[in-house]
Amino acid sequence: MDYSAEVSESLVSVREVPSGGGLSLVRGILTAGVNCGIKKNKKDLAIIYSETVCTAAGVFTINPFRAAPVIVSESHLQNSLAQAIVVNSGNANACTGAAGLEDAEKMADITADALHISSDKVIVASTGMIGQRLPMDKIRDGILAASAKLSNSADSQEAAEAIMTTDTFLKSVAVEMDLSGRKVYLAGIAKGAGMIKPNMATMLSFLCTDAAIEPKLLNKALRQAVDQSFHAITIDGDTSTNDMVIILANGLAHNTCLAEENDPDFARFQDAMNHVTLKLAKMIVRDGEGARKFVEITVRRARDREEARQIAFAVAESPLVKTSFSAGRCMWGRILAAVGYAGIPIEPDKIDVFYGPVQVVSKGLGTGKDAEANTIMEAKELQITIDLDLGREEAKIYTCDLSTEYVTINMGYS
Amino acid sequence: MDYSAEVSESLVSVREVPSGGGLSLVRGILTAGVNCGIKKNKKDLAIIYSETVCTAAGVFTINPFRAAPVIVSESHLQNSLAQAIVVNSGNANACTGAAGLEDAEKMADITADALHISSDKVIVASTGMIGQRLPMDKIRDGILAASAKLSNSADSQEAAEAIMTTDTFLKSVAVEMDLSGRKVYLAGIAKGAGMIKPNMATMLSFLCTDAAIEPKLLNKALRQAVDQSFHAITIDGDTSTNDMVIILANGLAHNTCLAEENDPDFARFQDAMNHVTLKLAKMIVRDGEGARKFVEITVRRARDREEARQIAFAVAESPLVKTSFSAGRCMWGRILAAVGYAGIPIEPDKIDVFYGPVQVVSKGLGTGKDAEANTIMEAKELQITIDLDLGREEAKIYTCDLSTEYVTINMGYS
Repeated sequence: MDYSAEVSESLVSVREVPSGGGLSLVRGILTAGVNCGIKKNKKDLAIIYSETVCTAAGVFTINPFRAAPVIVSESHLQNSLAQAIVVNSGNANACTGAAGLEDAEKMADITADALHISSDKVIVASTGMIGQRLPMDKIRDGILAASAKLSNSADSQEAAEAIMTTDTFLKSVAVEMDLSGRKVYLAGIAKGAGMIKPNMATMLSFLCTDAAIEPKLLNKALRQAVDQSFHAITIDGDTSTNDMVIILANGLAHNTCLAEENDPDFARFQDAMNHVTLKLAKMIVRDGEGARKFVEITVRRARDREEARQIAFAVAESPLVKTSFSAGRCMWGRILAAVGYAGIPIEPDKIDVFYGPVQVVSKGLGTGKDAEANTIMEAKELQITIDLDLGREEAKIYTCDLSTEYVTINMGYS
Repeated sequence: MDYSAEVSESLVSVREVPSGGGLSLVRGILTAGVNCGIKKNKKDLAIIYSETVCTAAGVFTINPFRAAPVIVSESHLQNSLAQAIVVNSGNANACTGAAGLEDAEKMADITADALHISSDKVIVASTGMIGQRLPMDKIRDGILAASAKLSNSADSQEAAEAIMTTDTFLKSVAVEMDLSGRKVYLAGIAKGAGMIKPNMATMLSFLCTDAAIEPKLLNKALRQAVDQSFHAITIDGDTSTNDMVIILANGLAHNTCLAEENDPDFARFQDAMNHVTLKLAKMIVRDGEGARKFVEITVRRARDREEARQIAFAVAESPLVKTSFSAGRCMWGRILAAVGYAGIPIEPDKIDVFYGPVQVVSKGLGTGKDAEANTIMEAKELQITIDLDLGREEAKIYTCDLSTEYVTINMGYS
């Protein structure tokens, strides 16, 4: 497998590990996935466990309807320490009130007991139907079964499977890097699906590393990584009830503990974080419900990055633009209309639009190259570039097409 | 036909005229619709003409990519006078630069010559494909043909037909009212389709009345009417390149000229305007591409109306919520998630949600009445009510479901 092309050029000292490694590649990380009976025949409960206590950080949904596990996990992370993650799929434990909070606390308690750690070292996550109580008997049995079969031998495939909902493929990425002469691993799994925006379907991602790193830096690295990956497939602030991204760092690589922002090793670690999260985020887009096209939308030469992002999101989320991707036809009028209604002041007669390398709009006017652009659109991966000619900033957003399958899937899913 | 039930209770002195009247009901208004060859066999050019000069007002798209006819018409309306509207479908004359502006001016000139009026009394409108020059020879022939057959006998059906694009039915509403002892008519036609939001597909509406009214009041009445109708099926500020709503008032009813805001006759006129525009706007929603359900979303007890609107739009535009309408299944979790990401501060544990009369969420928690709500959802018309318990303001937004047909239509349409 030639995976080197996928690694960004800045990753001179970060190397992607071909699939097969998963979370178990990271020293001291054990995982398990089981079926506890929330779903019929699929795995629906996972535990990720570190043999030693970890420095930990999390990014959580800012939707005011925060599911119980989000509230509990954020509280458990206040001391930046954690040792285990327990997660179920099939039931989101969202909009379940005080009883739901008790259930989430209980999930942590049962896991803590089974693993002989304290409850506040357990992160709890759920995804699935909103508004139903968790079946706690099944959850308890599942936690006991999963803790009994924790392992680092079978990579983390069963855990990655257990967090899937309408995902059609498992999402797992691992890299290795050298920090102060030690080989350090960073790996992550994720679940996505939905309209590939966390504002509509729960997005979960769990990352583990054996790097030694100060909590403050770990938190900073996670936020920067999420910003250019999971937040580049969503609107900032538009999140579902259950979204969370968690990283555990257990220090078992015994590198010199990362403590300074300007340490070149920290830059390396940040590169690794960026790479793993971006690759997972792109996998989520590729696995968007009913998606057949992967589309990268770049808005360049904007006055500032936030304006570029807002325009890119307006284009990426326009149902008319998304159906044109499905149709495989260049309809740049729909793109200009979306750029126009993004709410950012622009100058229409300065705008250029490209489908791949083909320029279809020059200074706000069509170039007559639509037929040529149509041939570009036959590919499964598209690049749309919108040049505003207003400044020097740019933003990239990843999205997919809107297909009849998306509608069918979401009519059925409940 | 029993149309009285459709008239709001406040319309004590405004009566809807059953279909058949159209614009021709208004004294002095002549119309015609022809095929000029932009489309194959369908009417694609219309003229609406008043025998006398009219007080006129317009609301135009605020999309920065304003089509040429929008720029020309807004300029022609600066003196609040107009006598004719010329409109074509099949080509939007948008993103066509200086040449497109010349074409739009020429459309006005040709119409003015044919009708022996001055060019600045002609309003120009276009809808259809973006980015192509108008076929001016066909437009000229069409204008000459239409002006030759202007008539008030055959109602305005041919004109209403000529502005349709993917609309599946003609949209025409007329009311009569008594103002200072005179019978006054107000009628309108509209085109919509697209995802029933003007940010995605052009929305055009042309209204005519024989009321005598001061320009300032006419402008005020139009803005208020549009706010509660066409702007309740869109996001304020999210508009397409070509949207416009125009009203011509020729005064031929010889009522005492409306000049004072607190004149009870002006209140009556406003009621009539609100009724005609709301009914046309609802027709546009019912005719949304692929739409099978008409959904009224009410957000009540908000702190202010703008916040209520923003939440209602977030719900109305969520693809997941819209597919749940298609599926005909109560999925209130999707509604709460959308309320949450609307960006307005709310209190999750105060929110109630109703499907029709069935309360499915009470203080943020499910009531267990989903099955009952599912039976409500079999109807073609749904009312969703979201009670925030934060204040006294409310907003109503009208939308439709998202179906596989929507995607299919928009993959094909170009």
